[in-house]
Amino acid sequence: MQLNELSTGPCGWFDQTDQNSGIVISSRVRLARNIKGYNFSSTLSSESSLELLNQLYCVIDEKTNHNLSFFRIDNMTELEVNFLVERNLITSVMAFSSMPRGVFLSDNELTSIMVNEEDHLRLQAFSPGFNLNACWKRIDRLDDLIESSVKYAFDSRLGYLTACPTNVGTGLRISVMLHLAGLKMTGELEKVKKSASAMKLALRGLWGEGSGAMGDMYQVSNELTLGISEQDCLNDFTENIIPQIVKYEMIAREELLRRPAILDDKIFRALAILKNARMISSAEAMSHLCRLRLGILLGRVTEVSLERVNGLFFFILPSHLQMSLGKQLTREERDYLRANLIRDILRGGE
Amino acid sequence: MQLNELSTGPCGWFDQTDQNSGIVISSRVRLARNIKGYNFSSTLSSESSLELLNQLYCVIDEKTNHNLSFFRIDNMTELEVNFLVERNLITSVMAFSSMPRGVFLSDNELTSIMVNEEDHLRLQAFSPGFNLNACWKRIDRLDDLIESSVKYAFDSRLGYLTACPTNVGTGLRISVMLHLAGLKMTGELEKVKKSASAMKLALRGLWGEGSGAMGDMYQVSNELTLGISEQDCLNDFTENIIPQIVKYEMIAREELLRRPAILDDKIFRALAILKNARMISSAEAMSHLCRLRLGILLGRVTEVSLERVNGLFFFILPSHLQMSLGKQLTREERDYLRANLIRDILRGGE
Repeated sequence: MQLNELSTGPCGWFDQTDQNSGIVISSRVRLARNIKGYNFSSTLSSESSLELLNQLYCVIDEKTNHNLSFFRIDNMTELEVNFLVERNLITSVMAFSSMPRGVFLSDNELTSIMVNEEDHLRLQAFSPGFNLNACWKRIDRLDDLIESSVKYAFDSRLGYLTACPTNVGTGLRISVMLHLAGLKMTGELEKVKKSASAMKLALRGLWGEGSGAMGDMYQVSNELTLGISEQDCLNDFTENIIPQIVKYEMIAREELLRRPAILDDKIFRALAILKNARMISSAEAMSHLCRLRLGILLGRVTEVSLERVNGLFFFILPSHLQMSLGKQLTREERDYLRANLIRDILRGGE
Repeated sequence: MQLNELSTGPCGWFDQTDQNSGIVISSRVRLARNIKGYNFSSTLSSESSLELLNQLYCVIDEKTNHNLSFFRIDNMTELEVNFLVERNLITSVMAFSSMPRGVFLSDNELTSIMVNEEDHLRLQAFSPGFNLNACWKRIDRLDDLIESSVKYAFDSRLGYLTACPTNVGTGLRISVMLHLAGLKMTGELEKVKKSASAMKLALRGLWGEGSGAMGDMYQVSNELTLGISEQDCLNDFTENIIPQIVKYEMIAREELLRRPAILDDKIFRALAILKNARMISSAEAMSHLCRLRLGILLGRVTEVSLERVNGLFFFILPSHLQMSLGKQLTREERDYLRANLIRDILRGGE
């Protein structure tokens, strides 16, 4: 598996389905694990890090039947590292660290195992669309396979021990990526955010940290890892939390459809700018792509396919753009080439 | 002459020519005059206003061989009055007054004579393109014709007496409308504004008062009416001021052409929004139309003609829109119909 091959293809975990009116983009389950007898990564010496990395490499490579590709992050260029962050295959913590570290990736990008991240191990399973159980089964099995060869740091009262107290217990983080364009446009998103917060859930932009979300793709994650079982947490997401948010989003979309001129104005301006800009930042492009995607899902735009737009969400990111062109570019060069790329792809459908 | 016939036609004084690379839109010369023996308008009783109006009506109608149409502003609807303001055929002062008042207009809209404005008489001559001398000849002749029948308020030391001290002397205001899109885009317009101010010239947005200019159409006017003869003032505009600003604008445009991606980005975004918006305010539309006009003049846009765009500058104004449709509209209705109208007209050229 070569990284640059990924850069022009669609992302494995990003919505290829149309279930739930395209509101749920993808599902992710992540486990944080640490190995008994080693300090947490932040206080681990470089030598011990390397020793741990080698040990975990051998275990995981063997247990996964050599089916995963392994990449040493500390041997990569900055561009390659940022590319993996953009694809959500590694965390920014892992990108910015300086210790010996690496990541296992499955060819379909649905499995990623980070070694020597903030925790010694971060196991991630993705699935396009809404399918947390599939993610959980995959990650649980992987966890068992690894645990059969190493001893995890575990406390009988607390559960799995992790570098950050917010992960102690199950070490489980469930995330569902959602396209909440309707709630954003009707101004109802703030209410959903407040409810989420009251339920100990985090609602964050999928791209761009914190409030500086690019576009209107969001991820909802659990904040509790202590005092709740993995299965209860999964059930809560599957049966309660996500269906509820999806319902609100559908109501918001119905509301928008009642005033088609205002809706179409936003959608067709977005499409027009994407098809005509000669310079465009990733944040601006993302915002227009989100509106265009909504337009396609609501049947307002028919000249561009959903697949074409879904593909663009990744192509336009700074490191993706540079990886696909095989070189570092200035911001101005990127803005120019990004606009060209988007025009070519969207006009190709005419 | 019917006002509603004007609403869908191009404006008589608005650029139909292409001289000076389309930088000079039009020229205007205005004279302020008051009749001896009457108070200035602001302190004139309603009865005396009516008496003066009737007297001036008879004089002007006769002296102009009944060639001008006369409209009583105080008998007009608010919409009709605002329509005349948008076309620059009457001033806002005249629109908002409550006294008996009226305006003479020539069919080609190149001559307008306001009666009972801030001053008893405001004579205006327009010309498309850069042609101040033609305006001056027309207005000077008209002034002489009227003066042969009435006695102007005149002081041998000060000159013509006017309601506002800024007009005392010649009562002359020369204005040239310019499309300064290049200077606006390169950020050099502020410098030109400062120089203009130092030279006792006013540089204002053509639409939208003061700093809230819509688009980048500007008018340059003299501020001095005392201590300078009409001919000196005209010569200064014709030989010095306007050619200098036009030169700066041309330099700015050349500079923009050196970075075509940045220029095209602005131009094609403007065109794209005009061709795709479903709701648009007049201020936003004006701003995009100005950029589109620049794009046509610089040869970047060829799919739309200059005439088509020039026509739109007036069509999109709130009162024009309502006049052409024959009814009052809410802001939302206007924004919707304006967007439709622009789409139809610009797409008609495809």
